[in-house]
Formats: sequence, C-alpha cells, structure tokens
Amino acid sequence: MAKQAEGKKEGKAVVRKVNEGISMGAKNDLEVVGKLERLGLDMLKQIDDETTPTFSTALRSKSNIIYDQGVGYIRLGDKTEERRFVNVGQARKFMQTVAIASKCKKFLKEDAHTSIRGLYYQLKFSLGDTLDEELFSEQSESNPLVEDLEVALTVKREDLNLNTDRKGVVAGPLTIKDKFGGEEVTIDCRKQGRSGWMIPSDVDNGMDFIDVDADYVLVVEKDAMWQRLNEDKFWKKENCILITPKGQASRGCRRLIRKLASKKLPVYCFTDCDAWGWYIYWAIKTGSMNLAYLGNDIATPEARFVGVTMADIKDYDFLEQLTINAKEVDIKRAEEMLSYEWISRNKDWVAELKTVLKTKKKIEQDALQGPRLSFVGDYLREKIEKKKFLA
Amino acid sequence: MAKQAEGKKEGKAVVRKVNEGISMGAKNDLEVVGKLERLGLDMLKQIDDETTPTFSTALRSKSNIIYDQGVGYIRLGDKTEERRFVNVGQARKFMQTVAIASKCKKFLKEDAHTSIRGLYYQLKFSLGDTLDEELFSEQSESNPLVEDLEVALTVKREDLNLNTDRKGVVAGPLTIKDKFGGEEVTIDCRKQGRSGWMIPSDVDNGMDFIDVDADYVLVVEKDAMWQRLNEDKFWKKENCILITPKGQASRGCRRLIRKLASKKLPVYCFTDCDAWGWYIYWAIKTGSMNLAYLGNDIATPEARFVGVTMADIKDYDFLEQLTINAKEVDIKRAEEMLSYEWISRNKDWVAELKTVLKTKKKIEQDALQGPRLSFVGDYLREKIEKKKFLA
Repeated sequence: MAKQAEGKKEGKAVVRKVNEGISMGAKNDLEVVGKLERLGLDMLKQIDDETTPTFSTALRSKSNIIYDQGVGYIRLGDKTEERRFVNVGQARKFMQTVAIASKCKKFLKEDAHTSIRGLYYQLKFSLGDTLDEELFSEQSESNPLVEDLEVALTVKREDLNLNTDRKGVVAGPLTIKDKFGGEEVTIDCRKQGRSGWMIPSDVDNGMDFIDVDADYVLVVEKDAMWQRLNEDKFWKKENCILITPKGQASRGCRRLIRKLASKKLPVYCFTDCDAWGWYIYWAIKTGSMNLAYLGNDIATPEARFVGVTMADIKDYDFLEQLTINAKEVDIKRAEEMLSYEWISRNKDWVAELKTVLKTKKKIEQDALQGPRLSFVGDYLREKIEKKKFLA
Repeated sequence: MAKQAEGKKEGKAVVRKVNEGISMGAKNDLEVVGKLERLGLDMLKQIDDETTPTFSTALRSKSNIIYDQGVGYIRLGDKTEERRFVNVGQARKFMQTVAIASKCKKFLKEDAHTSIRGLYYQLKFSLGDTLDEELFSEQSESNPLVEDLEVALTVKREDLNLNTDRKGVVAGPLTIKDKFGGEEVTIDCRKQGRSGWMIPSDVDNGMDFIDVDADYVLVVEKDAMWQRLNEDKFWKKENCILITPKGQASRGCRRLIRKLASKKLPVYCFTDCDAWGWYIYWAIKTGSMNLAYLGNDIATPEARFVGVTMADIKDYDFLEQLTINAKEVDIKRAEEMLSYEWISRNKDWVAELKTVLKTKKKIEQDALQGPRLSFVGDYLREKIEKKKFLA
C-alpha cells in the first residue's frame, strides 16, 4: 500500500491548531478514544485516496519553544513537523506511533492505566513475533512518541491512561472526590494527619475538587519543611492549602497548582534561597522547556515568590550567620537563570541572582528554624501579610 | 572543670547493654526526656566526683557489624567506644554530642519535630555567638552524633523528635489512628483512592494500628506497579496490605513492615529480577549495614521473596523475550551480593545470582504487564497460592 501511495498527493491525518489555548482538563474517555480512532481512520482514508499516510504534530525542538510574554509562560510556537509513512527515515517512527496509539486506545477501552514502562513492555510483547526486527528496542524510543501523540491530539498522556511519576503532598481545606478503580472515595485534606494526601499522577480524570475553602495556596520546596508546618497546623491557622512538590514539581503537582489558581486562589512559593530552589518556583510559574507543549495546562503565571531571598538578610539579621557557601553548580545555575529572558527583565530577580554571584552564599529554608522551630511560620505570616513578594 | 577532672578515675555516663533485644517501639516522651536527663546528670556527677566525663556507645564501624544467624539479621556486636571530654581529640565531639542531646530534650518538651537539617541550624544559631569557633560547620558532623545518641540511649531518632526522610505508600485492610499536632485522625487504607496512605517518618509514636485485617503483606518495589495493582484492587481481592517502598525502603517503611510481621502477617516481596531489586528484599529481611544498630527494629527475617526470579522464565516463557541486558553495575552488584555470607549460604539465591552473571540479563517487574495489564495480578496470585517463594 505504501508503494501505491508513493508520490501521490499528500493529506494531513491530523489538523492541529497549535496553541489554541484549550485547557486539557478532564477528558471523557470516549472523547479520547474518538480522537485516537479519527487518527487511524484519517490514515486509512489517505491510503484509500492513494495518498501517503502522514502524521503531523507540533515541533517540540528548541527552535519552536518560546516564552510568550502575553500569557506569561513557555509554550510551543507554530512550527509543525510531518512524518510520512513512505519516507525510509520515518517509516519506523511512523509505525511506532501508530502502535502506541493503538495500545492507548486499548487501555482506555479496558479502563486500565499503566506507566510508559508498562506500555513499552506491551509493545515489546505483542510485536515480538510479528516483525523481523524489534519495533522497540529501548524505552527511550517510545517516550518521545508518546509526547508526539499528546501534542497531535491535544490530550495529556494522563488522558491516554498513562501514569506519570507522582510526587508531592497536600494538607489543608481541600476535599476531593476520587473516582478510581470502580469506586469513589472522599478525601478531606484536613484529616490526613502527619502523612498528608499524596498528589497522584492525574488530578483531572475522575477527580473532583468538591470543596476548596482556602485563602491561598502555599507551596513549600522541601518535605521536611512541609512536615514542620503541618505539625504546627500552619494550614489551619492561616486557612491555606499547604503543598510540597518535594523538590521540582511533578506534572501532577504543577497541574494541581494550576487548577487551584484557576479557582482564584493566590499561589505563594517558598523555597531555598539559591538558583535551584528559585527555579522550582519558576517552573511552577512559567512551565519549563521540556514541558513547553503543556504550558497552558501546568504553568501558573499568577504565582508569587514569598522567600527565601537574599534581601531577607536585611529584615532577619540572624540569617547572615546561617548562610552557607554556594557550590560551583549553584553559581553556574544562577548564571544560566540570568540568561533567561523572562528572568533577566525582572529587576528584583536580577538583583537576587547577582547577590548570589557576588557573595557566593546561599540560604536554605531550613535555616528559618534556627531561632526556634516555629519561627518559620512567623516568617511566612509576616511576609504574606505585608505582601513582600517577588513576582 | 575539665582540667580538674583530668587524669582522675573515670566513670561511665551511660551503661548500655548492647543487643539486649529490646524493641524500640513507641516511647513515652517523658521516658526519653528521662534518658537524656540521666545522660547529663551522670556527667555532672562524674565532674563532682572529679572523674572525667565520658560518653560510651556501641561501636558502629565495620569491625562491629555482624550478621547474626540466630536472629536472622544484621546487628552490632559487643564492642563499645568511649569518648572522654578531657581527650583533646574527643573534646569537640563530646561537646557536640551534649549539645545535640540538649536540643532533642528541648524538642521533646516543646512537643515539636524537626529534621536533622533543622537540628543543625538550631545548633548553628544558638552556639553561633558563644564560641570562638563554630561548633558545627557541616551537617555531616552532626549526623553520626545523632546515631551515637540513638545507640547509647537505645532510642530511635524518631523518638528524639527527629524526622527522617519518608517514602512509600500503603493500600489495603489497615486502619490507623494518628495522634499528631494535638489532633487525632483515623485513616482507613481501604479508602485512599489512587493515592494511598503515605508512610510517615515515625510509625510508632502517637500511632496505633487499630485494625489489621489482612491475610498477608505484599511489598512491591515500584510505585508504578503499586498503582497498577491498586487500580485492579488486588489488595481487596486478595485481602492483603499492598505496600510500595518506592525503591529501597525508608526507615519508616521498614519499621512498618516489621510491625506488621510482628502481628503474624506473612510478608512477601516482589521486585525486579536484578541485584538491585533483590537487595531491596534483602534490606527488608536482614536489615542493612548502615542501620545495623536498628536491626532488631527494622529487620523482618520472616519475609519471603515472591519474584521476579530468573527461574520464572521456565514457567512464564514469554519472559524470555522481555528480558533486557544487565548493565555493568548490575553485574558488579550481583557479584557483591554473592560475597555476603547470609546470601552465599542460600543455594536458591546463589543459583539466581549466578544465572545473572552467566546470561547478563535482567527482568523488570513491569515486564509482567506484557501479555495484558492485569497479568501481573495473576502471576502474584499463582505464586503465592503455590507458595513458590525464595527464603
């Protein structure tokens, strides 16, 4: 068939409006199955029409990643990429993409989720005997193709029943209805004790936020600090939703923060005073390059930074004594951040980064426990009350 | 005072019975405060008696770590170490130990927890102006001294209100009462939806297992696999408690497994078929060298290994096709494991490890999703029913 189609007029299997600004919220499984079926049917039609089956998706390479000042986050530009079945260099990738789409449709029909590792083994298993050579020899081959599908169909991989790594914990005035595995449970994040509610891979499908009765969202870099604030019932006293991403935020955690911000809750971030901590904030705020294709779904440009800053030393002089030496990687990262256009045009952040470069010092958020364990709560309360934020 | 005491008869501040087999369960805070006070009072008495203040603890270096075949876990031997205040080489460490003990007493009195990082900053803060030089310049100095205190006082650091890194998730017929931060919540691990109950740092103090109605405990290496089994409600169908340590088990996770085993629940472990996965099982079963001083509290010698094994290929022939190449680190780790006496005397495990060395292959637990996503449940059911375990 491929031969017949060769050299004929080409069609487009998928017409994708890039950056159409549609938020990828909860999807109806049938809707996603429909998109996958349409992808296949379009290809079949192309073959019937004696044209070359093609797969079109937004280009995700660096040249098509832009920071959009208007919306305040990193997104893909308008460049697209087209893959043709009859092209020798693209045929393998083409077949792989179709195989992945077919598996995802199966998972959706079965109402069962797996990881991209599980997907890889299903592909390896079912295609093992039918082809002369392995269609997938490494998982690194299937990962970017999953992203291709996400972009081409404007769905998240979570909507394709593919779980992502989960990380992060929540406590506070938030109640969730979780429909999962044929049952429905209600989870009150005020009643999770020392553990908290663990942020899942997917916070859209089968998940309703039935009660969000908070004044703001506080995102705390480290789990140890979250535990400290949770023990002091900071979230109860301040009526806030207390989240820790445990370092860089997972997809699920960023999506959760985005959803809470969409409910008009202010989002404040609290990290170490060093480039790595600050970049946790920036990734939540503007999204990140490798997830540029999800910018609209996971970025929270409204987020504000509450601390720790180098400027804090002026107001909390004990911090001077608790600074520690920045390592070479910290310095290098600070220099990199200064080169990002969305940071370099913000004079407060430029001043902070330059102070790091000059003093070669950093301050951990843990240092705010120096005077007494509960001091960190006082610090946050004061800065939030006085609106001492960095944008 | 130190000068006065120099050269005089020495006393022992702490007489510790090494390996007395007392399990360090939940401690009464007052009891721990009492132990800390006794440590200080004994030192004061030594000074009054014009003897040298000493601090005695079990030696934790390699020469004192033994695998005890009788109990089936790694523990400390009988060697002790004594630290004298008047010894120039030990005075700094001595002062540091006393400073840490004093802080921990304060945390217990305040009923507040922190991390060892938080402890470090409190030490750095409060001693900053009183001494000519910093008592603690790096956290690496305070960490082993916390272990000294744990061993000398036969308490866990969790009992000293020091949180440890937490990791791991639970679902299944287990209900917990968590008294924490002045409140008490009840957590039913059957009703945690897709998230599960996150295993905290401390599963002893303020925590009661009020309902453990399971037939066994299944420990699953990877979170992705836990999510798969949780979605299929494996724990409900099989009436088991489903735990993932998310890789190597944290202190809290190991302690939880130990406590469940003490309630006469069989413990089965399910990991990748490679040396790293298998060592997750072994660390749960026999404890580990760096936590030898906690052997009695965290090791579960009763644990059994359900899979994945190289021998599985005989019964599940599709696995042959889903093996992947072992990396050099996998091979090296397998060789190391063969050198451990508690493994090298087990012929089944020697056979498994030698197969890895011969074939240079490994099998991930994810591969059991190859035929269909729910196959992994069938595999586990069959192996558990037929008691196909490795000891």
